Amino acid sequence: MVLDQLHIDALAAITGPRGVIGEADSAPYLTEWRGRWTGTAPIILAPASVEEVSKIAAWCHEHAIGITPQGGNTGLVGGQVPDGQILITMKRLRAVRDVSADNNTMTVEAGLTLAEAQAEAGKADRLFPLSIGSEGSCQIGGIISTNAGGVNVIRYGNMRDLVLGIEAVLPDGTVWNGLNRLRKNNTGYDLKHLFIGGEGTLGLVTAAVLKLYPRPAQSVTVFTALPSARAAVDLLSLMQGETGGMAASFELLSAATLDLTLKQFPGLPRPVETRAPFYTLMEFTSGSGTDLAGKIEAALAKAMEKDLVLDGTIAQNQTQAGELWQIRHNVSEAMKKDPAYCVKCDISVPVQDIPAFLEETGKAVEKTAPGARVIAFGHMGDGNIHYDILGPEAGEHDAFKARSQEMERLVHDTAIAHGGSISAEHGIGILKRAELAERKDPAEMRMMRAIKQALDPKNIMNPGKLL
Amino acid sequence: MVLDQLHIDALAAITGPRGVIGEADSAPYLTEWRGRWTGTAPIILAPASVEEVSKIAAWCHEHAIGITPQGGNTGLVGGQVPDGQILITMKRLRAVRDVSADNNTMTVEAGLTLAEAQAEAGKADRLFPLSIGSEGSCQIGGIISTNAGGVNVIRYGNMRDLVLGIEAVLPDGTVWNGLNRLRKNNTGYDLKHLFIGGEGTLGLVTAAVLKLYPRPAQSVTVFTALPSARAAVDLLSLMQGETGGMAASFELLSAATLDLTLKQFPGLPRPVETRAPFYTLMEFTSGSGTDLAGKIEAALAKAMEKDLVLDGTIAQNQTQAGELWQIRHNVSEAMKKDPAYCVKCDISVPVQDIPAFLEETGKAVEKTAPGARVIAFGHMGDGNIHYDILGPEAGEHDAFKARSQEMERLVHDTAIAHGGSISAEHGIGILKRAELAERKDPAEMRMMRAIKQALDPKNIMNPGKLL
Repeated sequence: MVLDQLHIDALAAITGPRGVIGEADSAPYLTEWRGRWTGTAPIILAPASVEEVSKIAAWCHEHAIGITPQGGNTGLVGGQVPDGQILITMKRLRAVRDVSADNNTMTVEAGLTLAEAQAEAGKADRLFPLSIGSEGSCQIGGIISTNAGGVNVIRYGNMRDLVLGIEAVLPDGTVWNGLNRLRKNNTGYDLKHLFIGGEGTLGLVTAAVLKLYPRPAQSVTVFTALPSARAAVDLLSLMQGETGGMAASFELLSAATLDLTLKQFPGLPRPVETRAPFYTLMEFTSGSGTDLAGKIEAALAKAMEKDLVLDGTIAQNQTQAGELWQIRHNVSEAMKKDPAYCVKCDISVPVQDIPAFLEETGKAVEKTAPGARVIAFGHMGDGNIHYDILGPEAGEHDAFKARSQEMERLVHDTAIAHGGSISAEHGIGILKRAELAERKDPAEMRMMRAIKQALDPKNIMNPGKLL
Repeated sequence: MVLDQLHIDALAAITGPRGVIGEADSAPYLTEWRGRWTGTAPIILAPASVEEVSKIAAWCHEHAIGITPQGGNTGLVGGQVPDGQILITMKRLRAVRDVSADNNTMTVEAGLTLAEAQAEAGKADRLFPLSIGSEGSCQIGGIISTNAGGVNVIRYGNMRDLVLGIEAVLPDGTVWNGLNRLRKNNTGYDLKHLFIGGEGTLGLVTAAVLKLYPRPAQSVTVFTALPSARAAVDLLSLMQGETGGMAASFELLSAATLDLTLKQFPGLPRPVETRAPFYTLMEFTSGSGTDLAGKIEAALAKAMEKDLVLDGTIAQNQTQAGELWQIRHNVSEAMKKDPAYCVKCDISVPVQDIPAFLEETGKAVEKTAPGARVIAFGHMGDGNIHYDILGPEAGEHDAFKARSQEMERLVHDTAIAHGGSISAEHGIGILKRAELAERKDPAEMRMMRAIKQALDPKNIMNPGKLL
């Protein structure tokens, strides 16, 4: 699509000069943060109000101009990268419209970062539990549109489970007020679920009502070394049983994941001396009036008796807990620092299938690319493994990169053989669009396309993504 | 719609004679269980397999014949009552396809009753937590299509929160396999949420993957008398805080509700001697290793100190707990036994607005219909009150009935003034269809109609309901 200057001027007039990102400042919006994709946009707009968003959409609708919405530009599948569409960044829609400790809800606009939303909840002595690595820069609208997951899903669910209502600008510019604040409301199709995880293909989310929770009074963070992935599955079951489901996070790290992270971040101490094929980072939280630490110690003793745990350490204070989490949070950065190319997968399987998945995939990878390093880590409690394959340390990086699709396919095939998903939390974007069409139930693809056509007949909302 | 004999014969041939309900047996399918609606259907089919359902839908699609799907015929808004469409009862689709304690899921067909599904989960030492009064007869397909709620929503959510995946026959007869068993799966629009609460207007749900939970090791049931509705809100907050959120049920009963139920069921003992304007029935559950009873006793002592509770009793065993629940479960039956007409509302408001809602509505009702009895009860923990208005004991029943729409309107107006909903858990059906179109955001109505048109272009799926 080529826009002439008249179109561009008309769009710029809607926001005024403050709402137009100049060419000199455009790079952070056009280039995906890891540098994997660079897009083009005839104009980048930063509207300051829902009304401005509505006017932009109405104008684009009238003239059949494509729109790519963008939050914090932290997505991992290219959904936020324009390909000739105009780009709308939501970063100036930052109002906290309402925080109700009584109703355990808050209503915030799309451009607030996740960390800012968490802080707002904290001010009201409440918890907004979603937590992901990019929380300092990702935005509410973006994590709704991608149905973000993260490290607390096992206890609190995905973003989908934390949104009660949304406000969105529809493709023709209409503002839909779906800001439901109720826990129960059976009045027709629950349309918010199309926009949550909809990757911006049906409209622009401008605000949302989020669920809040009591802030946990205590937390215990534990790092363990395990003899096998099977032991991790059994450990999860044992710890949940013994604590009555108090796990807030249950993260797995393969040996190669820990080794790489400690190598790239030499300031981080090795949490346990025992070398093992797998490690877990677990966090348990509870209200007051429970001897949480005592429960965890007793449960870990049981786990050691049963040979599920070889070694472990319990953080004695917030600083130690923070150090353990530093390891987990630096895994992605550690891979980025390594010169080898990395094939990144984000699969899920039923939890009990994780050991078989890891074993089968590991063997296939070793056969296909001898010496490749399997950086398997992530949200084991949800059956979600980030299965990344880093090229051999001393290998030919380009030769490895050339085979990346083959390796991705191999990982996805194994996940699907176990009833799994090719995208547990990152979404489809442009990265997995072709594969989705190929792997999904054809009836489901037809329904998705019919809905897209019904709600966005001119296909102006994030065209080229997802579908 | 009038079907000729050729159509009827062709449909009957799909299921064979065992799958055709004869005229002599048709009454239980055509008449709503309370007798509020009686419908007509040229034929009632009871298909024995998903394949038969698919063939019926395909044939109806080809010939533009309307279908009304029916579960246990326990719905309260007439969604299951045909108006000349063919009726499909799902009662013969009863397979338990899979129960996995490891994965905490089970896959069951639509015709299984809720009580049977609960029992299947129990056999695997798991809990399927949804619980509603009609659980002995309502069916899985029906409670998915109506997004049922009930007494455990405060802890486990609505049906929507308990379904991981569904299988459905689409309007053209295609079988959609959406039987996702994963906790995380971000691969496009999450279409199951259109069918959950969709009231059968988009297709026929034939099976579902349900979430299972650990069975609680202990439970404590408490009945209290309270000085006010405000005290009930504060009591909920206090009990959740003191127990770390262990409430599984938090049910409110107005004085008139308790009085009527005890009058109609004289075998039930009055649980507390103190007379009060409101009562609560609460159930708390937990795993082992917690002194649950001790916690509840201490919390109740605090509540009494703060004058939130006037009197209370803790069930000492399962029999006593069962007797307390009998009161709650017999409320609807007690109203049915009363000769006066009853205006039934099912509203929700933010929890903290319940006292104001009750006070304002009570005053307006007394002004409109002096002597009417307000039977307000239900799931206070979710902000959901069943607000039923029973005509005066000695009044003119027909005169009261003639004003029922006016009274319903008054209740709904007050709920909406508090940001509430006119249907918290019962749905829309035919009862509230006109009111929905009038009260809902027009943009939302347009989207709902566009989706219905896109997925069911011939409008054969439960026409005349919801939209």
